Amino acid sequence: MSDYDTVSAEVEHEEEIPEDHPRYQDLITRHRIEKGVEKGITHLQGMHAEGRGSAFDYLLGEETIPSANDAERAAAAQLLLADHPVLSINGNVAALVPAEMVALADATGADLEVNLFNRTPERLTAIAEHLREHGADDVKGLEADARIPNLDHKRSKVDAEGIYEADVVLVPLEDGDRAEALDEMGKTEIVIDLNPLSRSPQVADVPIVDNIIRAVPAITEHARELADADDDELQAIIDDFDRERALEAAEERIRSGDL
Amino acid sequence: MSDYDTVSAEVEHEEEIPEDHPRYQDLITRHRIEKGVEKGITHLQGMHAEGRGSAFDYLLGEETIPSANDAERAAAAQLLLADHPVLSINGNVAALVPAEMVALADATGADLEVNLFNRTPERLTAIAEHLREHGADDVKGLEADARIPNLDHKRSKVDAEGIYEADVVLVPLEDGDRAEALDEMGKTEIVIDLNPLSRSPQVADVPIVDNIIRAVPAITEHARELADADDDELQAIIDDFDRERALEAAEERIRSGDL
Repeated sequence: MSDYDTVSAEVEHEEEIPEDHPRYQDLITRHRIEKGVEKGITHLQGMHAEGRGSAFDYLLGEETIPSANDAERAAAAQLLLADHPVLSINGNVAALVPAEMVALADATGADLEVNLFNRTPERLTAIAEHLREHGADDVKGLEADARIPNLDHKRSKVDAEGIYEADVVLVPLEDGDRAEALDEMGKTEIVIDLNPLSRSPQVADVPIVDNIIRAVPAITEHARELADADDDELQAIIDDFDRERALEAAEERIRSGDL
Repeated sequence: MSDYDTVSAEVEHEEEIPEDHPRYQDLITRHRIEKGVEKGITHLQGMHAEGRGSAFDYLLGEETIPSANDAERAAAAQLLLADHPVLSINGNVAALVPAEMVALADATGADLEVNLFNRTPERLTAIAEHLREHGADDVKGLEADARIPNLDHKRSKVDAEGIYEADVVLVPLEDGDRAEALDEMGKTEIVIDLNPLSRSPQVADVPIVDNIIRAVPAITEHARELADADDDELQAIIDDFDRERALEAAEERIRSGDL
């Protein structure tokens, strides 16, 4: 754990990090976030949040536990069954999984919407540009002409034709206040968060306790497998998923896993 | 946990953070690190490391557990009994507890030495200046005319009259390689680290599993209480301290504490 810095932080391109390095995933993650800060995509606090997440991932064993895989399959089914699914993108999400979010949007027919806690025009533009560099066609959230009720003005901004009217939203790495407010709007909420007891996964219909680097490609893979499934099959996967059991399994793993 | 960002990151001075805020300590910590990055004191990776630490602190209950208090008392005794104690300062330590490290140096007669993983002249100067602003007279580590054996050239630099010849060193938030190398030099090593199973506390004579924000003032307080103690009393405190038991108690707390 404290060995976080035994690989030089001066790696310029992630290709320089050897794939067989035992800390490969962690190093890639940190590298992408650091580049995100440099590019104005990620807030400095995002580096802190990512560090916190990495501690929980370490306690989870840095792997997708079976209950998280179930959640990822249920998330794919929710997105496929939705009338209007939206994937919410903040600074850390954009830095960590830009191409992966674009692929998930493609696989599920979802919109991409930038939604920032520390919202500035510069960051919005940088993130939209970054997503387009990674294959996004349409990026919502720049207009932000609607408001989520019960949230501070600045943090409540969403697109009327995006998150505001979505029936299913994926909000990875989301803060508790916004996750609660979206829940109160009646959205079906899919959350990715490494701490099973934080508020966001607690209020989610589908809490995914997994590293976003693993979770997003996994949801996409499930969505591709389920591309030809009919509504009944998708609904059965959703009904079969037990959110309480998933949260408990994650907590159990954190408490009893190899430290 | 995911509520980390419900206080605006735009607080300019830490006095603006209300002391009765339930997340006061965490907010102060993040604020200081963020300012440290802005001032060129703290490496971006330090923000990540601090985030990781905060997750372990959360699992510890964000308080000094009894075994950590024992370790802090043993650390004070070690520093007081030493012929030449040195307190090692890196970017996170300088950002988080500059005045507190100066106070500890005063209370124990220890030297302060800047010792950086990502060593650049600019960061060395910024940190030395920052310590002087917080009351330090003499700051070692700028010359770095000696080398710790068995470490990369760049990371091995220390002062011949500082860490190199010290008998007792306090190395808070230290990476595992350097902690091991110092241990191999035969130093009595005091480590502050929130993950009991990381390498640095594992090799330490006195592993302190506590938040540095709480730990350093606590060591100073013990040192002041022990100012008139004779060598036998100090030695008895040291002999009475059980490093294995302290590490086990911290791990037990992390596993069984309120998540």
